[in-house]
Amino acid sequence: MRWLRFSVPGTPEAFGILEGDRVREVRGSPFGEWEATSRVLELAQVKVEVPFIPRTFYAAGLNYTRHIMEGAARRGEPPAVPMKPDMGYRAVNALIAHEEPVVIPADATKVQYEGELAVVIGRKAKHLTEEEAFGCILGYTIGNDVSERVWQKSDRTFWRSKNTDTFKPMGPWIETELDLEAAETRVRLNGEVRTHFRTNDMLFGIARFISTMTRYLTLHPGDVIWMGTDGSSPDLKPGDVVEVEISGLGSLRNPFIAEAPR
Amino acid sequence: MRWLRFSVPGTPEAFGILEGDRVREVRGSPFGEWEATSRVLELAQVKVEVPFIPRTFYAAGLNYTRHIMEGAARRGEPPAVPMKPDMGYRAVNALIAHEEPVVIPADATKVQYEGELAVVIGRKAKHLTEEEAFGCILGYTIGNDVSERVWQKSDRTFWRSKNTDTFKPMGPWIETELDLEAAETRVRLNGEVRTHFRTNDMLFGIARFISTMTRYLTLHPGDVIWMGTDGSSPDLKPGDVVEVEISGLGSLRNPFIAEAPR
Repeated sequence: MRWLRFSVPGTPEAFGILEGDRVREVRGSPFGEWEATSRVLELAQVKVEVPFIPRTFYAAGLNYTRHIMEGAARRGEPPAVPMKPDMGYRAVNALIAHEEPVVIPADATKVQYEGELAVVIGRKAKHLTEEEAFGCILGYTIGNDVSERVWQKSDRTFWRSKNTDTFKPMGPWIETELDLEAAETRVRLNGEVRTHFRTNDMLFGIARFISTMTRYLTLHPGDVIWMGTDGSSPDLKPGDVVEVEISGLGSLRNPFIAEAPR
Repeated sequence: MRWLRFSVPGTPEAFGILEGDRVREVRGSPFGEWEATSRVLELAQVKVEVPFIPRTFYAAGLNYTRHIMEGAARRGEPPAVPMKPDMGYRAVNALIAHEEPVVIPADATKVQYEGELAVVIGRKAKHLTEEEAFGCILGYTIGNDVSERVWQKSDRTFWRSKNTDTFKPMGPWIETELDLEAAETRVRLNGEVRTHFRTNDMLFGIARFISTMTRYLTLHPGDVIWMGTDGSSPDLKPGDVVEVEISGLGSLRNPFIAEAPR
């Protein structure tokens, strides 16, 4: 089942369920009570919105071996492979929807993509075992953890390198059934596959993260966990189009444009 | 003017305006449309709730000189004084209200307080100059950035050291008028002042932070910025009561208790 959030001019944003290439509008929300309505629209005729605004926006960061190795090589540092799952944060100001443009600030010089699986929490959860962990998940969506590598190195935190406005494309929808073991992530730059990895080839898997996190914190419906990326990215420039595809889930595509002069 | 969020058994949470030792209930929210109602309750008879759930929860981190020096000395490291304002993040799962208990996890060994001024954003803002920065502020509240120092050192991020459930007391209310230059922060442990500093004695002030941040990101109504703390804290134990007072603003008091056995 695929949940999306959409809008059409003149009516408020709503959740919908994808039925082939059509969208059935829903009253309510997948995070609470909902019922399907009789209103059905063509997917091609609605604006796809960010599927939800996370309550807490978690990000695993370093969670695939090749990404850690290539990042360390780029910085001329020895690779620091995490020994345990430590969760970071991203910020909702930076979220944009499928097809919306990533705006490269005038003073940004090294912008790169990171294609990621995003785990959408559907139930309140604390003290879950690894066996119980999947029980709090509503579904999965796709994230592009756009990063400015110079700022990532120069700043004390990731506030600017990863959370500049428009740096967090997420969508296009939430898929509630995903064969994780079979899933593959492909990132296309201007139509050409430049990064390709098994989505579930993680250093620490989803169950391990959720179990570790909920030892100390409560997960809430509408929280999201971005699971990290593998490989590396070329430097992006205005005019580029980046598409993150996860097989069985969908494809998140965003153009990159230059900041308008002020 | 003081805004608080409160509840009484049997009715939903609501915003209210403090009138002496009474609360006037408000329909709506200080972040949007609102109107006062005729319902007035005794402050002593309502439960004070977290004044709002932030949309994005920013934290300045290192922003007072003595705190940086004493933290470095504690870790046996040279002090790293930030050269520019870089913003970090905290998480809403950890928020608790005035008088609610901070729960010390069974495996936590070095829990400390950090009394902080919290800046509450009331208007959408981008590209503000330092002169314009205060125009997006609704008011101020108080935060206690409770931290577990062993985890702060051992973990790759602050997810556990600073965002364990109940580690972020905030409140008791939002004060819309505050004489920043006159304000002093006092932290009392079991009634005795243990930390005392001029609230506005920051490395980078509020205007500088907001101006720097909004070069890259949009601030939204309901965002909060915790401005950091000065000095250091003793290690806290179950049974302790910590009170963060900012003169002209109010006082945020929370007991510390042990995690119940599972």
